[in-house]
Amino acid sequence: MSFDRLIRRIADLQNPTVAGLDPKLSYLPSFLLEDAFARHGETLEGAAEAILAFNKALIDQLCDIVPAVKPQAAYYEMYGWPGVRTLAETVRYAREKGMYVILDGKRNDIGTTMQAYGTAYLGQTQVGGQLCEAFPADALTVNAYLGTDGVAPLLPLCRDRDKAIFVLVKTSNPSSGELQDRRLEEQSSASDTAVGRASDESALDLIAQNVTVYEAMGDACERWGKEAPGAYGYSSVGAVVGATYPAQLARLRRALPHTFFLVPGYGAQGGGAADVAGGFDDCGLGAVINSSRGILCAWQKTGAAEEDFAKAARTEALRMKEDLLSVIPAPRLP
Amino acid sequence: MSFDRLIRRIADLQNPTVAGLDPKLSYLPSFLLEDAFARHGETLEGAAEAILAFNKALIDQLCDIVPAVKPQAAYYEMYGWPGVRTLAETVRYAREKGMYVILDGKRNDIGTTMQAYGTAYLGQTQVGGQLCEAFPADALTVNAYLGTDGVAPLLPLCRDRDKAIFVLVKTSNPSSGELQDRRLEEQSSASDTAVGRASDESALDLIAQNVTVYEAMGDACERWGKEAPGAYGYSSVGAVVGATYPAQLARLRRALPHTFFLVPGYGAQGGGAADVAGGFDDCGLGAVINSSRGILCAWQKTGAAEEDFAKAARTEALRMKEDLLSVIPAPRLP
Repeated sequence: MSFDRLIRRIADLQNPTVAGLDPKLSYLPSFLLEDAFARHGETLEGAAEAILAFNKALIDQLCDIVPAVKPQAAYYEMYGWPGVRTLAETVRYAREKGMYVILDGKRNDIGTTMQAYGTAYLGQTQVGGQLCEAFPADALTVNAYLGTDGVAPLLPLCRDRDKAIFVLVKTSNPSSGELQDRRLEEQSSASDTAVGRASDESALDLIAQNVTVYEAMGDACERWGKEAPGAYGYSSVGAVVGATYPAQLARLRRALPHTFFLVPGYGAQGGGAADVAGGFDDCGLGAVINSSRGILCAWQKTGAAEEDFAKAARTEALRMKEDLLSVIPAPRLP
Repeated sequence: MSFDRLIRRIADLQNPTVAGLDPKLSYLPSFLLEDAFARHGETLEGAAEAILAFNKALIDQLCDIVPAVKPQAAYYEMYGWPGVRTLAETVRYAREKGMYVILDGKRNDIGTTMQAYGTAYLGQTQVGGQLCEAFPADALTVNAYLGTDGVAPLLPLCRDRDKAIFVLVKTSNPSSGELQDRRLEEQSSASDTAVGRASDESALDLIAQNVTVYEAMGDACERWGKEAPGAYGYSSVGAVVGATYPAQLARLRRALPHTFFLVPGYGAQGGGAADVAGGFDDCGLGAVINSSRGILCAWQKTGAAEEDFAKAARTEALRMKEDLLSVIPAPRLP
């Protein structure tokens, strides 16, 4: 249930990191591009084939030391449907190799449409009498601007199919504060709110007063998570909390004891190990730290030979693991 | 520039509607499914082929009376990469038939990742020396919970490639008020905000005080839109405003004079023509009203023969047009 599989894998590998698979073509060694272009020309198919080869080589080098990968949907969609096929094949390959797959799509919608996203990434699609899996990930990132209607359709999948979600709470970008840091007024009883509003069921109603938008969103994660608890204290509803905001990260760790964190912003976005330490609990659990460019482009930064791109990624992943373990307790099951 | 092409087409056809292409398999006549399953089995490929045939027949019947279509990405992604190929082919086919294509993906991210989404849906992907188009839509729906960083990367595409976006402002679902209707406190000068926050450039900083989250988001649309104005008074940055909130819709129309509205919730979601009338200006412009199930499932509701599913959609689209024109001025260019 919930993030339990991820947590066990983090403890097994003594490594709370996730490798972000954001494969821009400029990150790929030229021999992979040349091979694929020789077969398909400079086409979306060619790009997609080169990316799949890149991802598979990285997964082969990372799967015994890094617990999870996080493909970012945008970098596959920009290569059209062939790119999206590579996304599906990457998800399958990483899971075959035992990795936990977090699909970073930041999907959001309501009702049957959100159900369709859930089906696509966490569920099974019925076609006639058959059940098919479209993109069989373990977890999906979600944007909850639309409220409970955009999250509730995923909770049965979390409960019944051992899946999980990460809701955007506090993102790592400079302008994240424009909305997320704004403080909410106390709600009047006679607010000019919605037709059909179901106050009894709405997670964001029950928050403490005088909080910021991101704190309200975090509180909602705690409440949504009650419907899908886990064995190690963390529910199936996690939160994205950026590493560029260390004080907020530590405060949220205390405020949201059942919410597992996905933390972007380590390395390339400016955050270091000290900045993410506040995201962890006393067991060295409670967060998984993402590095994308740092790992993918290690071969370029270190001046490694092109052929050694995946080994350079492994070396960087091991360095990152040691960096994190120098500031947090060694991960162990509670 | 901006929504000008959509506006001209609305005036030409005297019809401010968009047909939502949300093709659940249960909406399809059985002969389309049987044909496709005979060739591909009950597989994702089979489903995707049936949906493409369904969409093409609908587009053929709608393209001379309805200005735009809005494929909802979730209903294609749930059929895996073959479904996403059908999405790409649907976008191309609708544009070949002269329709304006709004891709409803509610995408959101930051920086280079948001650029990748822009490239996928509004731009061109560079592969070696070639420029390819992945999903060449005219407009994309966007969720701006992440602030200006999630919108700014799309504005150059709007300006330079005659594209547009719709930002989620006030959605049509019951729980939309949980966050969107919450009132924001005045900002203190010493707020505990972000490292690297660029106050001078942040759209949501410049809003009127004591507004709700959705009003702040609407104001941000006006400001973002200044970077990509249009010929008829509406910028390239539109807003999604649900038809289930008629009072809010009318108030937002007055408050956001340069922001074109995409209005879901007509018909199946409970809104009628009177509920959406407030979204239009004195020229009968300023909004496009979506109907998905109402049009797609017209053949089921009217008891039409299966073979006549596309004709039934056309009849419903004409009925909807007359319904709207009974409560708004006949659309004309200002």
